[in-house]
Amino acid sequence: MNGLFITFEGPEGAGKTTQIARLEQYLLDRKIPCIVVREPGGTNIGNLIRHILLNPELSEMKQRTEILLYAASRAQLVEQVIHPALSGGQVILCDRYVDSSIAYQGYGAMWDINEVMQVNRIATGGLRPDRTYLLDLPVELGLERIYFRGVKKDRMELKEKMFHNRVREGYLAIAQAEPERFRVIRANGEIDEVFNQILRDFECLLDQKLLHKPI
Amino acid sequence: MNGLFITFEGPEGAGKTTQIARLEQYLLDRKIPCIVVREPGGTNIGNLIRHILLNPELSEMKQRTEILLYAASRAQLVEQVIHPALSGGQVILCDRYVDSSIAYQGYGAMWDINEVMQVNRIATGGLRPDRTYLLDLPVELGLERIYFRGVKKDRMELKEKMFHNRVREGYLAIAQAEPERFRVIRANGEIDEVFNQILRDFECLLDQKLLHKPI
Repeated sequence: MNGLFITFEGPEGAGKTTQIARLEQYLLDRKIPCIVVREPGGTNIGNLIRHILLNPELSEMKQRTEILLYAASRAQLVEQVIHPALSGGQVILCDRYVDSSIAYQGYGAMWDINEVMQVNRIATGGLRPDRTYLLDLPVELGLERIYFRGVKKDRMELKEKMFHNRVREGYLAIAQAEPERFRVIRANGEIDEVFNQILRDFECLLDQKLLHKPI
Repeated sequence: MNGLFITFEGPEGAGKTTQIARLEQYLLDRKIPCIVVREPGGTNIGNLIRHILLNPELSEMKQRTEILLYAASRAQLVEQVIHPALSGGQVILCDRYVDSSIAYQGYGAMWDINEVMQVNRIATGGLRPDRTYLLDLPVELGLERIYFRGVKKDRMELKEKMFHNRVREGYLAIAQAEPERFRVIRANGEIDEVFNQILRDFECLLDQKLLHKPI
């Protein structure tokens, strides 16, 4: 595999979409072939699954079902899009991946973390990102940004705040366990400032890649 | 749990639907509360998943995706329908369950059987049927019956025949590994004859259940 598989993780409101767009532009400017994908979705089948997952009328959905649906969408994305792009030498910028399931469904919703990992290992065939940028920020700030966007207008319950605290702690625990793969980015600054943190690391990664490329 | 969880397995054309309808009628005549469910589906969410799984236009679907989607539908069915029905003392007649995934996706499509089992153990929380009736018949006969129904009109490829042979052998291997749970029913006879084989066993099962019921 000659490409680079980069994932972005972190809570809603951390600025993943913005930073991915910036990095995509950086790559396009340098004529480095890249694709941007998001989870759940990223394929025809994945989008149909996304539609089920994000339908607010299906409130009867069980935790197990949710874990398996996210994994199914991911399985399709990995085989149909990510593997071919990697083989073709592209840079893949992926908005959420396995770590989201572990942080949200494992740590956040307190499902058995080993089960979440097992299902996802099978879904991805064990494919890991070359680099994961965790956009970290205080829970209150992330929630504030979401309010501001108008995505969530109702008063945040204490329960929900505790959930997001667990997600953040989960993310930080995963990052700590895999320091080679993860870079924790302080995401509470200005957009440029955050992007510079990412870029500083990404350029090193790209250099290494180019150095190791067969001539 | 006070109910009885009965599953029916076997190839298309073995007569599962017919036999389930007969057993349902038998239970209704005796005023024994029962429900009939089928896989994939059996719930709102499961039917949406079924829709994706059985859409012939989505031919790009990968094996992993398929395994996970079947498991997601099953997870929802188990928690939303089967567990409550069992707690309520009902008899559940289920058209296909975990063994279908093992036979078709494991043995038939030759995916790693342990992975299929792992995913399904997580999907079902390990819930096993009290009894599984495997309607077994020679592959040629099952395929003939499907032709007759008009479900499949095109010439059967050798490859497909080999697939169905592996499915049958898989089913028989699973049944042999769990003789307590399985009853292998010779399904190439007349409908009444097949039903009598099932009923003879089912009545014993029901008697045991009634004997053990707290007064």
